[in-house]
Amino acid sequence: MTRAVLAAILTACATMASAGLAAAAEPIEPIRPPQSINLGMVELGKKLYFDPRLSKSGFISCNSCHNLSRGGSDNIPTSIGDKWQQGPINAPTVLNSSLNVAQFWDGRAADLQAQAGGPIANPGEMAFSHTLAIGVLESIPAYMREFKQVFGTDKIEIAQVTAAIAEFEKTLVTPNSRFDQWLLGKKDALSADELAGYALFKESGCVACHNGPAVGGASFQKMGIVEPYKAQSPAEGRSAVTGKDADRFNFKVPTLRNVEMTYPYFHDGAANTLTEAVDIMGRLQLGKTFSADENAKIVAFLKTLTGDQPSFMLPILPPSSDKTPRPNPFGK
Amino acid sequence: MTRAVLAAILTACATMASAGLAAAAEPIEPIRPPQSINLGMVELGKKLYFDPRLSKSGFISCNSCHNLSRGGSDNIPTSIGDKWQQGPINAPTVLNSSLNVAQFWDGRAADLQAQAGGPIANPGEMAFSHTLAIGVLESIPAYMREFKQVFGTDKIEIAQVTAAIAEFEKTLVTPNSRFDQWLLGKKDALSADELAGYALFKESGCVACHNGPAVGGASFQKMGIVEPYKAQSPAEGRSAVTGKDADRFNFKVPTLRNVEMTYPYFHDGAANTLTEAVDIMGRLQLGKTFSADENAKIVAFLKTLTGDQPSFMLPILPPSSDKTPRPNPFGK
Repeated sequence: MTRAVLAAILTACATMASAGLAAAAEPIEPIRPPQSINLGMVELGKKLYFDPRLSKSGFISCNSCHNLSRGGSDNIPTSIGDKWQQGPINAPTVLNSSLNVAQFWDGRAADLQAQAGGPIANPGEMAFSHTLAIGVLESIPAYMREFKQVFGTDKIEIAQVTAAIAEFEKTLVTPNSRFDQWLLGKKDALSADELAGYALFKESGCVACHNGPAVGGASFQKMGIVEPYKAQSPAEGRSAVTGKDADRFNFKVPTLRNVEMTYPYFHDGAANTLTEAVDIMGRLQLGKTFSADENAKIVAFLKTLTGDQPSFMLPILPPSSDKTPRPNPFGK
Repeated sequence: MTRAVLAAILTACATMASAGLAAAAEPIEPIRPPQSINLGMVELGKKLYFDPRLSKSGFISCNSCHNLSRGGSDNIPTSIGDKWQQGPINAPTVLNSSLNVAQFWDGRAADLQAQAGGPIANPGEMAFSHTLAIGVLESIPAYMREFKQVFGTDKIEIAQVTAAIAEFEKTLVTPNSRFDQWLLGKKDALSADELAGYALFKESGCVACHNGPAVGGASFQKMGIVEPYKAQSPAEGRSAVTGKDADRFNFKVPTLRNVEMTYPYFHDGAANTLTEAVDIMGRLQLGKTFSADENAKIVAFLKTLTGDQPSFMLPILPPSSDKTPRPNPFGK
């Protein structure tokens, strides 16, 4: 081995070690592909996620408001429910939701499975009931066979429906964003402006709440710390779950993964653009007014968090049978 | 060559010839995969087909009512439009619609491209306008690039939007049904009951209107020839287009391809099951009351018309930009 080769190897080792340290020291971690996935449950859950027969009207599916063509969101301030009811809160993205500490803005569901049953039975959303949804599914022979294949039983239970939907949702992570490529060692993955934006994001304190693999989703924080937030939504957040006045206006910190796709922003969907959201967050949460240049750099950084969107075939749903109760879109 | 081999060859030739003659003599023709497809337009059209930003609310896309997970239909009697308005007529399947003589139940659009612009601007459906839809699309850089790639221009026109959607829809054919396999020579593709049902379908006269590759879609016929049909819809059919009283209650004969998936049936969606639809068609159009056994056999035959559903990746839509006009789901 020549000295030159030895020197080259030592330099490479030093670079790798420093890159490793740098990555370990970053407050944001790369998204990892999902582990321990039950593929039979995923395929069943995917169908259920797209099936409007889980709603009273036969028109609204999970995908209506958590649209996987659109960053797992509906891109309107608050969602449209049964009979065009206006929802009270912005639909959070389903992407990377398995990384959240809890589900819903107020964290009232402990996990994805607990969440999945909520909208089906919510009179303002899918307006159905678990019993009626099971009745529909059990009337469809192809679903009966698939539930039997996956769960080994001849009866469908709501816990199986929600477990399958949750298993599908666990697959909806978005690795391989340019930011993650940078974290994983591709040092030219980000531009100078994007890196400057990331530095500002860390130095200004955004990272205190927006950290970890989901760049958020890990804690509840008050909306309006330095200045109060004038919400366009009546939602009071975490206090509705804990009953504690101290939790009023505490909301789950949203993930910033794919944030370019999940406009409008905040729990009331009041901020239309990232520029606006960064400005409001800076002033209300950090007491900091970002200059136009700083704001633009932070926005440039945020856009590097868009990862590979879930990629799969549109599921084909099994037809109803003659015995399937028909949907009721216009009646009482 | 031995006499035995020669005899075997002659028998094989005779079988092939008779199979060929039989297929040629059938009133239903196999669906052929689409020809002369512009793949760039298809990919663009697929995105537009799934994009709710072509509606005022930002919630309704082509796929909402012509759902490709569900036989290209919405499986409710009449569709849900902007602000949950109840549509006047059952949403026809988009599958194999390229084979129709004209589009809509009354044939008021000559072809798929002429059809595609209708719902976008219909106040009871997507409730938008062509001008507003173009404004949205032109504000989205990724769409601008894709239109330029496909059409070579820097401006988006509604004729390009509808041409792209129509090109995608041309791909939505469903070859390879068991019935088509039988037509193409797989003589064990159908059961004895299914073949008996097909024989009844021909002998009873159903085939007078339901023929050709789409098993319908080729002509306008009166709904209620022998007995009047008491419609649950105010639609008067073809006369709305021609202005001729003789065309009242003339509707385009629907395709029976994938009819197992496109319930409920008729232009008012009043028949929930194939059994009911076959019974009503027999009595009102043919003056014939099918026995339960005959009805079941015809239904068994109809279910052999379910072909391969279009199979593609769920499209990922480009995000809006800061300049994109936001949807208006709840305002005036």
